Amino acid sequence: MFGNRYITVVKIGGNVIDNEEALARFVKDFARLPSPKVLIHGGGKLATRLAEQMGVKQQMIDGRRITDKATLDIVVMVYAGAINKHLVAMLQAEGCNTLGLTGADGNIISAHRRKPTPIDYGFVGDFTAADIDHSLIGTLLKNDITPVFSAITHDGKGELLNSNADTVASNVALACSRLMPTRLLFCFEKRGVLRDVNDQQSVIRRITPDIYPQLKADGVISDGMIPKIDNAMKAIGGGVDSVVIKHSDDLLLDAGTEIRGMCNADEE
Amino acid sequence: MFGNRYITVVKIGGNVIDNEEALARFVKDFARLPSPKVLIHGGGKLATRLAEQMGVKQQMIDGRRITDKATLDIVVMVYAGAINKHLVAMLQAEGCNTLGLTGADGNIISAHRRKPTPIDYGFVGDFTAADIDHSLIGTLLKNDITPVFSAITHDGKGELLNSNADTVASNVALACSRLMPTRLLFCFEKRGVLRDVNDQQSVIRRITPDIYPQLKADGVISDGMIPKIDNAMKAIGGGVDSVVIKHSDDLLLDAGTEIRGMCNADEE
Repeated sequence: MFGNRYITVVKIGGNVIDNEEALARFVKDFARLPSPKVLIHGGGKLATRLAEQMGVKQQMIDGRRITDKATLDIVVMVYAGAINKHLVAMLQAEGCNTLGLTGADGNIISAHRRKPTPIDYGFVGDFTAADIDHSLIGTLLKNDITPVFSAITHDGKGELLNSNADTVASNVALACSRLMPTRLLFCFEKRGVLRDVNDQQSVIRRITPDIYPQLKADGVISDGMIPKIDNAMKAIGGGVDSVVIKHSDDLLLDAGTEIRGMCNADEE
Repeated sequence: MFGNRYITVVKIGGNVIDNEEALARFVKDFARLPSPKVLIHGGGKLATRLAEQMGVKQQMIDGRRITDKATLDIVVMVYAGAINKHLVAMLQAEGCNTLGLTGADGNIISAHRRKPTPIDYGFVGDFTAADIDHSLIGTLLKNDITPVFSAITHDGKGELLNSNADTVASNVALACSRLMPTRLLFCFEKRGVLRDVNDQQSVIRRITPDIYPQLKADGVISDGMIPKIDNAMKAIGGGVDSVVIKHSDDLLLDAGTEIRGMCNADEE
């Protein structure tokens, strides 16, 4: 179907988006990565800055942002507008033919608004890999076009929704694995999952389901990393060949933390 | 190639975007319009409001907005983000499978920044129909996906540019006419080109190149309408089958002003 043996799905975190030089390096490397490939990007601080400028107060519950209507309008502008189109233009300049997407475009991701109980997170969209239509992704990849996703989805009833970029990445990778073997790379500002957060040399090279609970119990894996590894485990369990968490500078290198599944890992 | 005999390219103006009820009516009608079809949308007042909220001063020369860097960032967020994705989600809810695009996506429109002399309009992108790659538009239409364009383009060197939505519409229509017969509809808040701007019944049913100069000389056609009609004449001259300027409520009706060319109209 394609020139390469596998699809590479890359997720880039908000901290890289916010760092102009790191982003420029990543864009050059991503353009060199063999096709077929897919990019999913996070948000960064631009949405928070814009909310401040517009006088839209950000409501947080348990450290999580509530996406009220005004905040939804802002994240759509920033994620699907500013960041997505800027990335597309930067990658075009490097000769990588990209096309920016939300889940609403081509109806690729049909999400549903999260239930308002016990906490109403507002316009937040949840979905699984089964809610992703991989046919258009396949059509684009066959035409040597690289899809670039922001984490904006829709409910099919006219409402845009704010989704988690890690969840978009792992589910898009799962959907891609129906097309051909797929690997998933989470790129961020650290060298991988670290034993000691202050020591970039302390990368845990491999995490498997048998050692993961102990790493959590020991506090080695912190709160922010747990959903990422859970997403990775689910992706592996569902058919993605490999998942690696690595520094955005290490995109083309054999580096970072590989998440391995078990043969009989549970699918959702 | 397609089920229908022609591609319909529809441009919707900013005043319709700004009117929630008119927009909802238009979206329902556009969803019912037979495929293949393409939508191009203008901007409306949201960008100006956002600029005010952000304290970005809008510089005007001869009534035309200067797109400095801060203004470019705003129009990208508003046109390619807020308006484009809102339209895509609204049309998906009506069962019309749309995909939102800028000219940077899929490298569909390669523009060049306008020369800074005699007036530096800033990050404004000019292009002709020859700068449009119609192959991806054709691929989307064949897959029954309706492209929805904002008037953001790029220069291929990493810079996004602000383009005129009427120009995007007429050139996309010209590019589509290479695929199959194409008609172009400019939809706005008036019933067509009016003999008397205060009388919605005074629609000029047909404008041809032989009567156009006289209508301009008599002041019947005002400043704002001239570029629209010039774009329409160019589209007809270049191969578009028909161009109609009409009210957004009249999308599905035989109404408005038809622009007719001459057999030997000049191509650009």
